[in-house]
Amino acid sequence: LFDRVKDVGGKAVTSRTARAEATLRAPAQCIALLRSGETEKGDPLKTARIAGILAAKRTPELIPLCHPLPLDHVDVTFDLEDDRALVRATVSATARTGVEMEALTAAAVAALTLYDMLKPYCDPGEIALAGCRLVLKTGGRSSFRAESREIG
Amino acid sequence: LFDRVKDVGGKAVTSRTARAEATLRAPAQCIALLRSGETEKGDPLKTARIAGILAAKRTPELIPLCHPLPLDHVDVTFDLEDDRALVRATVSATARTGVEMEALTAAAVAALTLYDMLKPYCDPGEIALAGCRLVLKTGGRSSFRAESREIG
Amino acid sequence: LFDRVKDVGGKAVTSRTARAEATLRAPAQCIALLRSGETEKGDPLKTARIAGILAAKRTPELIPLCHPLPLDHVDVTFDLEDDRALVRATVSATARTGVEMEALTAAAVAALTLYDMLKPYCDPGEIALAGCRLVLKTGGRSSFRAESREIG
Amino acid sequence: LFDRVKDVGGKAVTSRTARAEATLRAPAQCIALLRSGETEKGDPLKTARIAGILAAKRTPELIPLCHPLPLDHVDVTFDLEDDRALVRATVSATARTGVEMEALTAAAVAALTLYDMLKPYCDPGEIALAGCRLVLKTGGRSSFRAESREIG
Amino acid sequence: LFDRVKDVGGKAVTSRTARAEATLRAPAQCIALLRSGETEKGDPLKTARIAGILAAKRTPELIPLCHPLPLDHVDVTFDLEDDRALVRATVSATARTGVEMEALTAAAVAALTLYDMLKPYCDPGEIALAGCRLVLKTGGRSSFRAESREIG
Amino acid sequence: LFDRVKDVGGKAVTSRTARAEATLRAPAQCIALLRSGETEKGDPLKTARIAGILAAKRTPELIPLCHPLPLDHVDVTFDLEDDRALVRATVSATARTGVEMEALTAAAVAALTLYDMLKPYCDPGEIALAGCRLVLKTGGRSSFRAESREIG
Repeated sequence: LFDRVKDVGGKAVTSRTARAEATLRAPAQCIALLRSGETEKGDPLKTARIAGILAAKRTPELIPLCHPLPLDHVDVTFDLEDDRALVRATVSATARTGVEMEALTAAAVAALTLYDMLKPYCDPGEIALAGCRLVLKTGGRSSFRAESREIG
Repeated sequence: LFDRVKDVGGKAVTSRTARAEATLRAPAQCIALLRSGETEKGDPLKTARIAGILAAKRTPELIPLCHPLPLDHVDVTFDLEDDRALVRATVSATARTGVEMEALTAAAVAALTLYDMLKPYCDPGEIALAGCRLVLKTGGRSSFRAESREIG
Repeated sequence: LFDRVKDVGGKAVTSRTARAEATLRAPAQCIALLRSGETEKGDPLKTARIAGILAAKRTPELIPLCHPLPLDHVDVTFDLEDDRALVRATVSATARTGVEMEALTAAAVAALTLYDMLKPYCDPGEIALAGCRLVLKTGGRSSFRAESREIG
Repeated sequence: LFDRVKDVGGKAVTSRTARAEATLRAPAQCIALLRSGETEKGDPLKTARIAGILAAKRTPELIPLCHPLPLDHVDVTFDLEDDRALVRATVSATARTGVEMEALTAAAVAALTLYDMLKPYCDPGEIALAGCRLVLKTGGRSSFRAESREIG
Repeated sequence: LFDRVKDVGGKAVTSRTARAEATLRAPAQCIALLRSGETEKGDPLKTARIAGILAAKRTPELIPLCHPLPLDHVDVTFDLEDDRALVRATVSATARTGVEMEALTAAAVAALTLYDMLKPYCDPGEIALAGCRLVLKTGGRSSFRAESREIG
Repeated sequence: LFDRVKDVGGKAVTSRTARAEATLRAPAQCIALLRSGETEKGDPLKTARIAGILAAKRTPELIPLCHPLPLDHVDVTFDLEDDRALVRATVSATARTGVEMEALTAAAVAALTLYDMLKPYCDPGEIALAGCRLVLKTGGRSSFRAESREIG
């Protein structure tokens, strides 16, 4: 038993997709700033999207035992509610192993980027990453689809 | 109004500390693996600690509008309960701006590393990052201490 | 005579600023897409701004003999004309050496990011980085301000 | 319409090559230093070649919506004229998408590295990246070869 | 003759493995700390294993003319003797070129990480990386297996 | 006792220097290639110097518990003997902690880069990193100077 990047040399190359969701809880005035895009540091959703996409590509540097993979596709989208923003990251690869960690890392880093841009506008006790979970996985030995949306 | 790394050139250099907590929810058999340290990929807590520390140092690459800062101190510790692991990351710097994002990023990446090492042992619906929030901030214009521990 | 990061240990820590401009030449229909923000890959100006800011922070990894510096401030702005986009990057630091390369790298990478997002909409012969130069430098032994704007 | 790394999962894996050129304009005494290789920071052409090669490999970290690709081949060469240096970067991959941005990034970063090593020897108004453009592309849906060399 | 990442586009994709060993010489009290895992900075073997694994993945950023490769497998193990620690790094890939540099880089960085954690406990004259060499290579045009273990 | 980046917030900022040496053993025909600079991948000494300098700057990403530091100065030089190359890396910083690991990492990565460029010209059993050690340290609580040069 030891820390290692598991050998996937014998696994089949298949088309794999994973989707993760992260929820940022913040006061209504902060969610309004996400809608307007006008904070002192700039447009939070646009910035967070890019941050999430770049984080997906850097996952093997961040999560030590992840495999480095060429990725076919990454996107990050947002749903805004009264007191929360939902970040949804989808990643695909044609690879010997799955991309769950890439999707989760993209969603978490995008949500933290929103946090960074909103924190001048609220108290630290009012804003938090309220959850980050896998909601879809296809293309490997097992598939998965989350039943309900809520995690917060 | 535009995206930018805010000018902190006129701010005072002070000693600043931030602490963040992230919670990973997982089934009891996964928490038991955190205690034993024996998963097929290795010892999760040791690996996650290193991942969190390295992530703190890379925060300005991940969170686009963060300032690059020399850090004086980073540590990541864990508390295990029946169905969850609490990750606590503390970061200090002698700098013109705070280190909240470094602490939050360290805690989130450490929790995601635990997730990566536990995911062979449970269903994707049973494991999730249940929260990540700031619990302490000192040394800047304002201080903050969270009142209670729970976020999940 | 040898490749090295020059010793700046004896130089004074002063507040330093540099500004660089890069020009992207592209057909009018591409400049129109920069105004609308609607390409198949997303909003080019927002994406390029983040790319330029991140590149400023990574300059010492890209330009081998640059010093690693904590930066106080980075911003990237755009001016659009009929057949070109002007990218302007400004960087400040309180440091022993200047930030010209950080400003030039930010401007060049932002312009290349615009290129990447516009290339599906024109022929490769119609789009090019038409120039990248320093326009302002203050805070070191010598100051500089470019006389006219045009470089293309 | 949103920022994303476009899905290339359905595209064919083919052998792809791209070549880009960047031009650095500098006074004759600076071009002479490129020939002699003797600046206070070392040999500019050798350093710029390595910087360009490394930049090609890091393109997906710099240009946010580029795909991460394993590369088969990268080289960077130089032509020196009286008042300018021409940088030529060639990149190949066996991949689902092209390597134009890798070639352009390699050429631009190599030219900026020359700039960094020559800037102690001239006025900032005398030195600039005078252009960076694609000159060759093969292996994808469309091919391209630039007609003439000049861009500056 | 020029610096370049050699073109491997025409080579066959095969399963390749390399193993490298690095030896750290240190006083007996330091080797005892490796066994107990209790230094002021934490558990050296666990930390060094993660550092080596991450370094294998970053080899193309560190060794300029290495190809970027997706890796199938990385592990790092240790043997402790009275006055030295032997680090063994094994790397596999399904690729057009070998992974010797990945294995050597992983072993060297893991050994340097042990050094970093042990240096508060001995004199700088008593601790050194005593060697780093390839011990196994399979899957390319030629295979190799080292005859004896000793390099120090 | 746990893995952490030690708190140096209370330590004095002083001017610190460290020098490390690494030795690469290789057959005479390989050392001759280092002198001529003519290998199929390019000029090994020039390439290794840049690799070492860049590695010094990236030490806190590679050695997990190292502090991120702005560096004042880095250089890498070489001495060639009949059957070995000696790499000497010198690093300085004005900082709260020393730069030994930066110097050791620079020397080791430079030596591994020489290895990478020479390996097509000899058998894997004939080439190895024969050692890497600290030879000088000044500016912190304690100073150190190695007595003799030899480590191999």
